[in-house]
Amino acid sequence: PEGAPPLPGERPAPEMVSLGKMLYFDPRLSEKQDMSCNSCHNLAMGGASGHGSLGGRLTPTVFNAVFNTAQFWDGRASNLKEQVVKSVMVNPAALLVTRGGAMTPNTSEMNIAKQRTAERLKSIPGYVPAFKKAFPSEAEPITYDNIGRAIAAFETTLITPDAPFDRWLRGDDAALSEVQKQGLKLFMDKGCSNCHNGTNIGGGRFARFGVAKNPGPDLLPADDVGRFALTRDVNDKYVFKVPGLRNVELIPPYFHSGRIWDLNEAVAVMGETQLGQKLSGEETAKIAAFLKSLTGRQPEITIPALPPSVATTIRP
Amino acid sequence: PEGAPPLPGERPAPEMVSLGKMLYFDPRLSEKQDMSCNSCHNLAMGGASGHGSLGGRLTPTVFNAVFNTAQFWDGRASNLKEQVVKSVMVNPAALLVTRGGAMTPNTSEMNIAKQRTAERLKSIPGYVPAFKKAFPSEAEPITYDNIGRAIAAFETTLITPDAPFDRWLRGDDAALSEVQKQGLKLFMDKGCSNCHNGTNIGGGRFARFGVAKNPGPDLLPADDVGRFALTRDVNDKYVFKVPGLRNVELIPPYFHSGRIWDLNEAVAVMGETQLGQKLSGEETAKIAAFLKSLTGRQPEITIPALPPSVATTIRP
Repeated sequence: PEGAPPLPGERPAPEMVSLGKMLYFDPRLSEKQDMSCNSCHNLAMGGASGHGSLGGRLTPTVFNAVFNTAQFWDGRASNLKEQVVKSVMVNPAALLVTRGGAMTPNTSEMNIAKQRTAERLKSIPGYVPAFKKAFPSEAEPITYDNIGRAIAAFETTLITPDAPFDRWLRGDDAALSEVQKQGLKLFMDKGCSNCHNGTNIGGGRFARFGVAKNPGPDLLPADDVGRFALTRDVNDKYVFKVPGLRNVELIPPYFHSGRIWDLNEAVAVMGETQLGQKLSGEETAKIAAFLKSLTGRQPEITIPALPPSVATTIRP
Repeated sequence: PEGAPPLPGERPAPEMVSLGKMLYFDPRLSEKQDMSCNSCHNLAMGGASGHGSLGGRLTPTVFNAVFNTAQFWDGRASNLKEQVVKSVMVNPAALLVTRGGAMTPNTSEMNIAKQRTAERLKSIPGYVPAFKKAFPSEAEPITYDNIGRAIAAFETTLITPDAPFDRWLRGDDAALSEVQKQGLKLFMDKGCSNCHNGTNIGGGRFARFGVAKNPGPDLLPADDVGRFALTRDVNDKYVFKVPGLRNVELIPPYFHSGRIWDLNEAVAVMGETQLGQKLSGEETAKIAAFLKSLTGRQPEITIPALPPSVATTIRP
């Protein structure tokens, strides 16, 4: 869309985006046919879910996720396609695998489920031409990997340009209020922007939650060790991806543990735990006001009409 | 939309429809904030859910529901607004209340939940002006009843005109194939259209499932007594609403028990249980071909951007 930063990589073909949109909304990607990408990454709710998560961590927003350097709170997927294939909606319990350290306790089960996902889509006649169009050079295009590619292609369109902050950056001085400008100055002077920077105002690096002060077991449950579960490097204990802050106003609750619902409170926690500073009520309010200027134009998505199941379609 | 039959009653104001659309997609109408109208009445899946139901009965489609004379499988709501307020998404278990006969075992709990639903919406600032616009003459428009009114208003827009059968009725002879025309003739001659008739090709009356022959406990579980639970009239035992057949191709599985996934098989079952006739494989195939001509133009719905929760919003 106009006013949006350029996508990393090539712009995907419209046939791929259109297929990916269908798949994004299709609950038949889950074993019981009761859950789609949109169930948790709700496009009506800023691309997140507005409540906790099946996986024990808060659902990150899909909006602007294409601009993140890695996906998931622990960054275990390096791009959107990997995020999709690792989400394995057929087995939401798989989302729990990084908790407590064990990465892949149920690989074989997941592999079966992956195969089954592709088989089920093959048994829905309407998907056959849609995959052929999206992957014209492939003889057997309905594969689990291609499901991931198509959904990722759709997700690259889920961006929210033209936030007041973007318009201000482009020279429209009136796009930010005075309070928001003061908030922006505090955001930079206090050090927030050391981590929350770049296209997504975050999403570009990892950081330990509790660099200056431990946030306590409520916000940082001891058994979720973050990136350490992937890397086994002690320096990665309780290290998580720095989330992008675009649309942050739209997607409470906050942090990977999802326990804070008040944006001001979230700012205050960050000040203490990451910067070692007790921000005043006025300062947190100003920074929160600035953060609200990161709410962009939400994508206009028309709900697709999904191809129907037929007698031979693999059932729940 | 063009080509659609006229709505019963007045056409609702656009402000009401627009509010209703937001509410339809808002998971904050459910206690845990994880379920919206669209979770079960999925607009991408013909307005139904493509799997079973929380309530023990298959989710009926919301598409064209405005043309039904009553709502729910047992007709316990006389219109869309009543359907919404009786669904009580805050307490999906309430959907079970007609099973086994007891109608309202948990009224008080539901009443509290209703109040809480309105209170939660009042605590989301973006809803305040939206309700004021939709109900301009009311001082306190955010009520549980008005939530129902607005969602019902949106639902009146969820109609699927211009099915091949509609075009054929309007004089386009080529809109139906020869096989479909033969199927239509069988549909009328065998007696299907005695019950499945009117705007919705059904939805206009009640009938006992098993008039000619009991379908057996798999399709007609003994503990779901149908309308008898409401009326206590023995003539209503195992009596259900005759479902409309528009878009039937899009919304397997079939019957209130949701056990049959093959449309041909569903037709054969109806022949035996309702008409006392064993239809040949050719006859069921022709009737099923005709039924596929009832698939209309699916509504084009753009996902709304819902107003965000704030610090004071009532939480899950």
